[in-house]
Amino acid sequence: MKKIAVLGYGVVGSGVVELFYKNKAKIEKNTGKELELGYILDLREFPDDPYGDKVVHDINVILNDPDVAYVAECMGGVNPAFQFVNSCLEAGKSVATSNKQLVAEKGDVLLQTAKEHDCNFLFEASVGGAIPCIRPLHTCLAGNDISAVAGILNGTTNFILEKMFCDKMDFDVALKLAQELGYAEREPSADIDGHDACRKVCILASLVFGKHVYPDSVYTKGIRDITLEDVELAQKFDSAVKLIGSVKRLDDGRILPIVMPMVVPGDSLISHVDGVFNAVMVWGDGFDKTMFYGRGAGKLPTASAVVGDIIDCAKAEHTITTHQWAPSANADFIAGMDAFVAPRFLRTSAASADIYETAAKSLGLTVEKSAENGCIISQCDNDTAAAFAKAVADAGVTVFSEIPVMAD
Amino acid sequence: MKKIAVLGYGVVGSGVVELFYKNKAKIEKNTGKELELGYILDLREFPDDPYGDKVVHDINVILNDPDVAYVAECMGGVNPAFQFVNSCLEAGKSVATSNKQLVAEKGDVLLQTAKEHDCNFLFEASVGGAIPCIRPLHTCLAGNDISAVAGILNGTTNFILEKMFCDKMDFDVALKLAQELGYAEREPSADIDGHDACRKVCILASLVFGKHVYPDSVYTKGIRDITLEDVELAQKFDSAVKLIGSVKRLDDGRILPIVMPMVVPGDSLISHVDGVFNAVMVWGDGFDKTMFYGRGAGKLPTASAVVGDIIDCAKAEHTITTHQWAPSANADFIAGMDAFVAPRFLRTSAASADIYETAAKSLGLTVEKSAENGCIISQCDNDTAAAFAKAVADAGVTVFSEIPVMAD
Repeated sequence: MKKIAVLGYGVVGSGVVELFYKNKAKIEKNTGKELELGYILDLREFPDDPYGDKVVHDINVILNDPDVAYVAECMGGVNPAFQFVNSCLEAGKSVATSNKQLVAEKGDVLLQTAKEHDCNFLFEASVGGAIPCIRPLHTCLAGNDISAVAGILNGTTNFILEKMFCDKMDFDVALKLAQELGYAEREPSADIDGHDACRKVCILASLVFGKHVYPDSVYTKGIRDITLEDVELAQKFDSAVKLIGSVKRLDDGRILPIVMPMVVPGDSLISHVDGVFNAVMVWGDGFDKTMFYGRGAGKLPTASAVVGDIIDCAKAEHTITTHQWAPSANADFIAGMDAFVAPRFLRTSAASADIYETAAKSLGLTVEKSAENGCIISQCDNDTAAAFAKAVADAGVTVFSEIPVMAD
Repeated sequence: MKKIAVLGYGVVGSGVVELFYKNKAKIEKNTGKELELGYILDLREFPDDPYGDKVVHDINVILNDPDVAYVAECMGGVNPAFQFVNSCLEAGKSVATSNKQLVAEKGDVLLQTAKEHDCNFLFEASVGGAIPCIRPLHTCLAGNDISAVAGILNGTTNFILEKMFCDKMDFDVALKLAQELGYAEREPSADIDGHDACRKVCILASLVFGKHVYPDSVYTKGIRDITLEDVELAQKFDSAVKLIGSVKRLDDGRILPIVMPMVVPGDSLISHVDGVFNAVMVWGDGFDKTMFYGRGAGKLPTASAVVGDIIDCAKAEHTITTHQWAPSANADFIAGMDAFVAPRFLRTSAASADIYETAAKSLGLTVEKSAENGCIISQCDNDTAAAFAKAVADAGVTVFSEIPVMAD
């Protein structure tokens, strides 16, 4: 009988316990092993909880019990999660985590520790919540050369943008609604300024391109500046505004990881991903493109991914070698925003189509769509986009916003 | 050095060879094993092919070479593929196949043979082509109780329906275009009559619900009867017509596998899956719902899934136990169409809203949407839907078509 320990008995941790007991027979059949919940580590007591007798306050109880083979880390944050997880791995106990901050900041170290001790550090839940994307990336798609990953990696901002899009809410009103519904924190910066999506981009980039990408290497812009007018103009162009996290390999071999609001054309399935749902699109040489969609957060959805990883830990006899990356990518590996190229969406004061056409022509660009208060121009780098905006402004038109357009 | 054999050097088989050599270094790193293409089995010679020297005509060459550890079956059809695959498995050689007919008709037998000889019979490519869906179903989502699977499992019919939807083509014109583009066969019945989708439903149903479901247990209806007028009315209701393959567990524990055209409301992501793309939506207790999207057919996309399976075969030391199901489900396990319940879309001659309302009220139904030539009514079984159509007809209105509506 192998024991599972759960670190942190908050929303996700309690979801893991609930789902484990609900589907215990199925999970045991699946792993071919008898499993038991051994301990729940938390600072608090839970006297009225059916599993309150499993609660311990000292990680050493777990570390010193040789029957604990699998650990679900659901504490969040880097400290003390990092020390706890690292110690578990050093003791040969495999760990499944939902903690994206931990993976984004310490993934390389923890993967190395797991490898040295022939156990596993898995983190399907850290990107896209319930959505199976980490495992398919390094198993199902392993015969391919993957060139890019992009998607909607934060449900809170997607909910806010949809409310602006469908219900014509201003940003502040939509944010307040998200807070009332429990989708956004009272201090919403981690979501709306893109930091949460940034961590997920780090994890995807590290896994796909094989070297650890740290959060401070990722150009990150949130959705605070997006206005209802931007969203309405995008809608006129049969497009939606989404917060996109993406990483792409450039022609020179470097990678460009970014998080920013983008205008997504209606013919991309990404533009139809609504509410708190997440989606991850992947491009590769054999399969062309594939997308994974589902709930990016929430108690049971996140627990679903953690329990799936615990099952994999229980099935694996050794370290899963495809689930590895090397330590920190150096600066030569990660490109800056000077390498960013995309079509651009501009919202302006009232202007004639001529003004856009003339400005575009002078820069070798084409106007792909235009309306009385904005346009979409063909792909260009940031300097050229700035030159276009200046040319339009020089013709007496105010430029209110410039948003890159996502290519599918 | 382990050898791979490819059975069948047609579109998919040559794609497997191409992708293997293109990404060989990556694949070897991934599996931790040196791999070589040993043989290509085909009746034909390929004197001008760079791998023409690998071509053999006798399966025994492959069976008798102890270095051949992995086999990619890309021949199609049940005979002689079944005998060849079964012999490979008996010799302890793991097999990856793209052959949905083989899996749908003989999956239980081949899985059993693989288990007895401690090797693997994998078939990610048999459903949804390049889309990772088989493996996530029995790994990532393994902590869940899965209740239903539904999706667009045939790209040819999806292409035809989209041409009707977007370009106002009649069915016959769209079919002809699909044939010209190579998406549809000259004898298109396997696609447009739903047999191809039916096989994929069998595979999904068997994997998810654990007992082999044979094609003749699946209610199967194709898209021949769908008219441009149906599609246009669906569009008025902000919906699309899609050929849906689905299997659902009913409240009484039985399962209901079906293939039929359905009206899919615009708020379901499935309705936005266009062209030759496929998508598989899955529902379960922990994750709620998740969707996998990608190319359902084609040389390299299908090869991508086969090569992914070959990599898994190379990594697995033993039979992957979660990738199993029991022999044939008996009739008690599979419900018939008398258990089918769904909202209904009706296209009629010109009628007043009153007529629909009165007919619905008399049967305890509600009219959810109506137009001058049709309506959508609340969910009901087939007998009630027929009674509704009769009530409308009795009021002097002609009923041209009745199509179930997909619930998300």
